[in-house]
Amino acid sequence: MKTIQLGHGGGGKLMQELIQDLFQPIFELEDLNDSAVIVSEDLYNSHKDFKIAFTTDSYVVSPIFFPGGNIGDLAINGTINDLSVVGATAKYISVGLIIEEGFPIEKLQQIIISMAKAAKRVGVKIITGDTKVTEKGKSDLIFINTTGLGLIPKEVEFSLNKITSGDKIIISGPIGNHGIAVLAERYGLFFEPKVISDTAPLNELVEKILKYHCHIRIMRDPTRGGISSALNELSIASGYEFIIYEELIPYSKSVKGACELLGLDILEVANEGILLAIVSPSMAEMIVKLMQSISIGEKAAIIGEVGSLKGKGKGLVILKTPLGGSRVISMPLGEQLPRIC
Amino acid sequence: MKTIQLGHGGGGKLMQELIQDLFQPIFELEDLNDSAVIVSEDLYNSHKDFKIAFTTDSYVVSPIFFPGGNIGDLAINGTINDLSVVGATAKYISVGLIIEEGFPIEKLQQIIISMAKAAKRVGVKIITGDTKVTEKGKSDLIFINTTGLGLIPKEVEFSLNKITSGDKIIISGPIGNHGIAVLAERYGLFFEPKVISDTAPLNELVEKILKYHCHIRIMRDPTRGGISSALNELSIASGYEFIIYEELIPYSKSVKGACELLGLDILEVANEGILLAIVSPSMAEMIVKLMQSISIGEKAAIIGEVGSLKGKGKGLVILKTPLGGSRVISMPLGEQLPRIC
Repeated sequence: MKTIQLGHGGGGKLMQELIQDLFQPIFELEDLNDSAVIVSEDLYNSHKDFKIAFTTDSYVVSPIFFPGGNIGDLAINGTINDLSVVGATAKYISVGLIIEEGFPIEKLQQIIISMAKAAKRVGVKIITGDTKVTEKGKSDLIFINTTGLGLIPKEVEFSLNKITSGDKIIISGPIGNHGIAVLAERYGLFFEPKVISDTAPLNELVEKILKYHCHIRIMRDPTRGGISSALNELSIASGYEFIIYEELIPYSKSVKGACELLGLDILEVANEGILLAIVSPSMAEMIVKLMQSISIGEKAAIIGEVGSLKGKGKGLVILKTPLGGSRVISMPLGEQLPRIC
Repeated sequence: MKTIQLGHGGGGKLMQELIQDLFQPIFELEDLNDSAVIVSEDLYNSHKDFKIAFTTDSYVVSPIFFPGGNIGDLAINGTINDLSVVGATAKYISVGLIIEEGFPIEKLQQIIISMAKAAKRVGVKIITGDTKVTEKGKSDLIFINTTGLGLIPKEVEFSLNKITSGDKIIISGPIGNHGIAVLAERYGLFFEPKVISDTAPLNELVEKILKYHCHIRIMRDPTRGGISSALNELSIASGYEFIIYEELIPYSKSVKGACELLGLDILEVANEGILLAIVSPSMAEMIVKLMQSISIGEKAAIIGEVGSLKGKGKGLVILKTPLGGSRVISMPLGEQLPRIC
């Protein structure tokens, strides 16, 4: 079995071969200069109507293959999603690989094919890249950085400052699938029915609702730390108290069961294909309906609202239980499961 | 001593603190959304006159501190240089960190201060970032990805296809300093005088010569695999034979001595602040003089020329020695020294 050698990251013949035999055909790279030059007309002709969004993420998920995806499509979807939640359409992505010596080239090929497919699915182009190799034991199989460029229609302007009392909190689908799928794969656990990662691009979902952009205050992609972390961040930044209702939050039985079994807080479990949006009350139901019209948003729901208390820099997220109780959801210290993405 | 914990990469309170206490003030980040939104007017108003360059690089250099720099300024300079060699002015950079659990926060601070300084020096803005943490032993101290966006004046168009017989090969300074400096630090070797990495931004050098862009065929930043790798790549891609003259190549005594002692080919040793340019013969001397007018280019020299032989996809780099001998410089298989950048 062919494996990655230190020389594959050495800027010589081995690296050239890797680029020519693997990366160039699979990613359909046109340009092998030190920088890609973007000549696409839409970026230039659109200057009057669009702003540019720029985002980066490194992926160190372990294991690198899990039910529903692998580190490759996760890395593409994740960056598409960071662009989507600011209202941008992803256009270009760069790929930076750090590979451990001895990594099977066949697996590398599988991963980059997944990346190419994930990119093609949403019409984003992978246009530049970089490969480094470390000695065995100095990294862990493969780490991937993806950095994305997208276009935001100029009139779209989400802001924490727009959050106000009475706004509704929407979630686009059942939570916790990614975290539990990775965890199950990592520790060899089985849940019935099997939990599949929700890794998916949010671009279509966001495009659907973007016509109501004036009614969207802000959106988040609640990955590490789950919706608990995202809600706390928004609550702290806006200063408003957030109230969510336990019975309104969508989740699957398997995920809930796994969390109870393992002592995990489902609100803190990572998602990779979920949109969290704070929207004006007048349009909240319409936005949920639009989300529900596509499969990824089938289970979209209003899960709570922005309260009336305001004290800048404080923030407070309260979970109301069906029996009338309530508890404070605090910002998690870190992620319950390291290397979830 | 405070160290990085797994939770610092977990999307919760610890990560927020790291961002607020360290990254935001040092990088002067304005925007903490999932994507940075570029609102700078120069990117929009300039659409008619500029193209966009996009480049990515991950840095895994070991050791992370070496004479002349550290992984932080190396990561910024390296990405600036990848933009510079396509004729672009660096504008925006993203920073993706992968940190090993237990890494001292004080060292992290030192590194990001170096990054901020290197960025400020050339007027490039660090606008978005990401931090992941792996368990101890699953990565090696710190890896950094930098991805850069730059602007290329629309009339600037370098291309391998422009290389033609008689063109001159220019190098902007003495070769091999970065590779030997890192090697010496890694293995505790001492050379007299001490070898210092040449890590530096090439933007000023490129700006100087860009007025003669019509006479520049193509430029490279000969890092991994040294000038040997860069020359072979250009020779293969253009199909022309390249001839370089040993006595014209600038290097320091220490670097030459270290290479002889260690059995390294100086032509294959990595550089991090050197420009390699193929230019028209009529302007070669003028371009060298312009380079020599700034300190980083003081030792700039014409080191060879493009020969008359042409056979597409073949390429051949020949080194002529002072005594009239000649030897073929082949594409290195990999880098002689792993993790040089």
